[in-house]
Amino acid sequence: MTQSAMSAAEQDFRALLKEMALLENAISLLDWDGHTYMPSAEGTQRAELVGYFNQRHFQLETGSKMTALLNLFEADGSLLTVDGQAIYRRVKRNYERTAKLPEAEFVAYTKLLSQAQNVWLSARKHQQFAEFLPYLKQIVTAKKRFISYWKTDEATAYDVLLDQFEPGMTVAKLDPLFSELQSGIERINAEIVRPGQQPNDQFMHRYVDQTTQHHLSEAIVQELGFDFTKGSLDISMHPFTIGMNRNDVRITTRYDDHDFQMSLLGSIHEAGHALYEQNVVAKWDNTPLAGGTSMGIHESQSLFNEVFLGRNPAFWQHTYPRFRELTGEIFSDIDLDTFVRGFNVTRPSLIRTEADPLTYPLHIIIRYELEKAIFNEDLDLDELPMLWAKKYQQYLGITPDNDVEGVLQDIHWAGGDMGYFPSYALGHLYAGQIFHAMQEELDVETLLANGDFQPLIDWRVQRIHQFGGSKEPNDLILAATGEPLSAKYWLAYQRTVYERVYQY
Amino acid sequence: MTQSAMSAAEQDFRALLKEMALLENAISLLDWDGHTYMPSAEGTQRAELVGYFNQRHFQLETGSKMTALLNLFEADGSLLTVDGQAIYRRVKRNYERTAKLPEAEFVAYTKLLSQAQNVWLSARKHQQFAEFLPYLKQIVTAKKRFISYWKTDEATAYDVLLDQFEPGMTVAKLDPLFSELQSGIERINAEIVRPGQQPNDQFMHRYVDQTTQHHLSEAIVQELGFDFTKGSLDISMHPFTIGMNRNDVRITTRYDDHDFQMSLLGSIHEAGHALYEQNVVAKWDNTPLAGGTSMGIHESQSLFNEVFLGRNPAFWQHTYPRFRELTGEIFSDIDLDTFVRGFNVTRPSLIRTEADPLTYPLHIIIRYELEKAIFNEDLDLDELPMLWAKKYQQYLGITPDNDVEGVLQDIHWAGGDMGYFPSYALGHLYAGQIFHAMQEELDVETLLANGDFQPLIDWRVQRIHQFGGSKEPNDLILAATGEPLSAKYWLAYQRTVYERVYQY
Repeated sequence: MTQSAMSAAEQDFRALLKEMALLENAISLLDWDGHTYMPSAEGTQRAELVGYFNQRHFQLETGSKMTALLNLFEADGSLLTVDGQAIYRRVKRNYERTAKLPEAEFVAYTKLLSQAQNVWLSARKHQQFAEFLPYLKQIVTAKKRFISYWKTDEATAYDVLLDQFEPGMTVAKLDPLFSELQSGIERINAEIVRPGQQPNDQFMHRYVDQTTQHHLSEAIVQELGFDFTKGSLDISMHPFTIGMNRNDVRITTRYDDHDFQMSLLGSIHEAGHALYEQNVVAKWDNTPLAGGTSMGIHESQSLFNEVFLGRNPAFWQHTYPRFRELTGEIFSDIDLDTFVRGFNVTRPSLIRTEADPLTYPLHIIIRYELEKAIFNEDLDLDELPMLWAKKYQQYLGITPDNDVEGVLQDIHWAGGDMGYFPSYALGHLYAGQIFHAMQEELDVETLLANGDFQPLIDWRVQRIHQFGGSKEPNDLILAATGEPLSAKYWLAYQRTVYERVYQY
Repeated sequence: MTQSAMSAAEQDFRALLKEMALLENAISLLDWDGHTYMPSAEGTQRAELVGYFNQRHFQLETGSKMTALLNLFEADGSLLTVDGQAIYRRVKRNYERTAKLPEAEFVAYTKLLSQAQNVWLSARKHQQFAEFLPYLKQIVTAKKRFISYWKTDEATAYDVLLDQFEPGMTVAKLDPLFSELQSGIERINAEIVRPGQQPNDQFMHRYVDQTTQHHLSEAIVQELGFDFTKGSLDISMHPFTIGMNRNDVRITTRYDDHDFQMSLLGSIHEAGHALYEQNVVAKWDNTPLAGGTSMGIHESQSLFNEVFLGRNPAFWQHTYPRFRELTGEIFSDIDLDTFVRGFNVTRPSLIRTEADPLTYPLHIIIRYELEKAIFNEDLDLDELPMLWAKKYQQYLGITPDNDVEGVLQDIHWAGGDMGYFPSYALGHLYAGQIFHAMQEELDVETLLANGDFQPLIDWRVQRIHQFGGSKEPNDLILAATGEPLSAKYWLAYQRTVYERVYQY
């Protein structure tokens, strides 16, 4: 069946999805606005508005019309075009996840999360995990009940959560992957970083005014393919990307007068997310396939930008003269080599979001092990702070002074997002493998050094972005790179970078 | 019946209105976003989204549930609380206006307006009224047909349109009011301005960078009562105010490096609109009474701010030192008297939106006379440019060189907003009368000169703002000032100002 001969049922299906997409579009804009320009007194009314749209969306997503259509397609797949089938599979998956939860339990859970996030904020203020613990226990209890509704026989409990962020991902796959990653990082540290010389990075904290930082971010993300006719760069407390649709993908950053790297790499990172969403082919507009295919693949695109372009010595060969031009005299005494080394310092740190690329995956592995223990081994949650400290000491050689530097640092658990953290490390590995595959076909270093970014952008659009959510992560990465995911390319790249930075 | 014993019917009614208010809130945010931060490529999808919400709103506004409730309340008013009755009257009026139009005609009209606005833009580019004329003819024809659905026996055709922007307003009331206004302006011009000496206003065009202008605007609108916890000040091509609800009222301005007055008075003007919406009492939240009561009263609040505060010599007595502090050395050679006179220059001009307060009402009177002739005397629209030029020559002594400076300058007719223009002049007169009434009770000049603005803000909140749309314009102005609307206070004030500026 061709697109032009779309069945009446598929047309209904598409119309329903479009209505859902329009609501999502509005909810996303409200979300963006809430983090950027919304006046502070507006909070309560805004929550009602978002709640109203979410309720409408839920009604459409799980209502009788949707149920009837999905049943119809299940009985007779020939009612769908090829594209329609791809859309159907994703919609069906979302539908089952939502529809299998008893509505009362879901509503209670939503309320719990809203309270838990406030308590988390308060617990951070008091530096007391104990304050947050009762809520975390309730969230885990609810989550375990949900897992019992979703679970199939083959999957472990934690697999169910992993799959929701990274379809197809399991503990059986992650354990060896993370083990290889961890020992590889340890080897780089032992062989290159520790015996090497810590580069000078004092100059990274020189004063650069916010307007200059903003111009830098604008100029660089644009060069890297971010399309300002289809997006904007604004300021928010925590940087994020929100895509309304491929023609409106907004990124934010934040500025610190004495830390230009934070805003610059932050913008480059978010622009990687945005590039993905801006370049999905039009045929997936107004369907759940218009976004990225998984959290891990999405993160791979931001990390590709940040780690493999934005921190890349070859990238700075082209960009540093421009950088110096825009920053006036501030860095006139810093040569390219010094700059690149200062840009790529690694040292163990307590806060995940501030970690450098080499130590970052260790933060994730700690969280992965804890989550796995919570869901697959019924870990007693009272032990979390102790275990957290122990693992940080073991893997990074440092121990948090308090819970805010430790187990209270991330909002994810308060938001019910268990199983999410591994996506960040997967993003690193996917990005490394993609970068390697790209190098096999293009002279990446020369292109970067010449500022000839378009072939690099086009390659990712062709291999990754255009497909949106229409390919599963495994299939996508296999098709794009020719092999299943491995940690070796990421490790090999980091080895080269840190050799350059530490062994000179 | 007390609020606490609200009937089930009124509760249903309130819930329905709340849903409409939430949709309006979202539509307003989309509108604000469209004029501020939306990426340019987003246009098409955005139009669909707004269309979707408008359609939902229309269904709620005129659907069977609303119809049944309004019929119920018409049959038995005792089902409503006192507040409920006020809300009902406004909802009923809006309902009748919408419900009386055949849906097909309304849909066709909406499409026509959308085309007409594009053609208007194109006609401006080509400076050709003839290009826009066929669309204007269609709009007028549609409007006349609509009037036949709405019209009562007493009203003239144009009265029907006037009433939609200013409830209770008629040609019979406006004719003498505008006649008094016009001759009063002519006398001020003849007696004070023309024999006087044109003040120096060259310094008004000195370079002031946009950041400084932004800080000036922020500081001054805040002093004048604009609450930044309930609003924001952003940049757009045309300044506007959009109120989502009393906790989120956003204003915009625009900056010209060589015309600080434009952004400053523009911000002060919009902040007057915002002050109104921020201060409506909470009990009208989520009802159509949460906004202003009419276009004229709304405009009176912005013009009060702009003309009676922002251009007031006493206001600058307090503000000028602050202004000089924020602008550095730029105006160090300009003393207060010179500044105030430069700020209040009057001269005839062709563009309404750039006119000074004294000549502005003449621009409105011209449009009023033309609209009245179109609807009450079947004026041939081909004659518009000729009549426009003739009236400008007669009332202002100048003639447009082309249609863009003439009959094509305003978007109102392309948007179907006939009967709207008089609101602007009414806003001037209301503001003048309100200022006079305030002076009877407060020593306004001293308060302004001391920067003691709070009593002036409180007075307006108590007399005007808090009521929102719950009082008709006539009743509101009578209660606030003790007498029906007249032109005399506005004229008397202008006479004082221009005497000070021109006769020194």
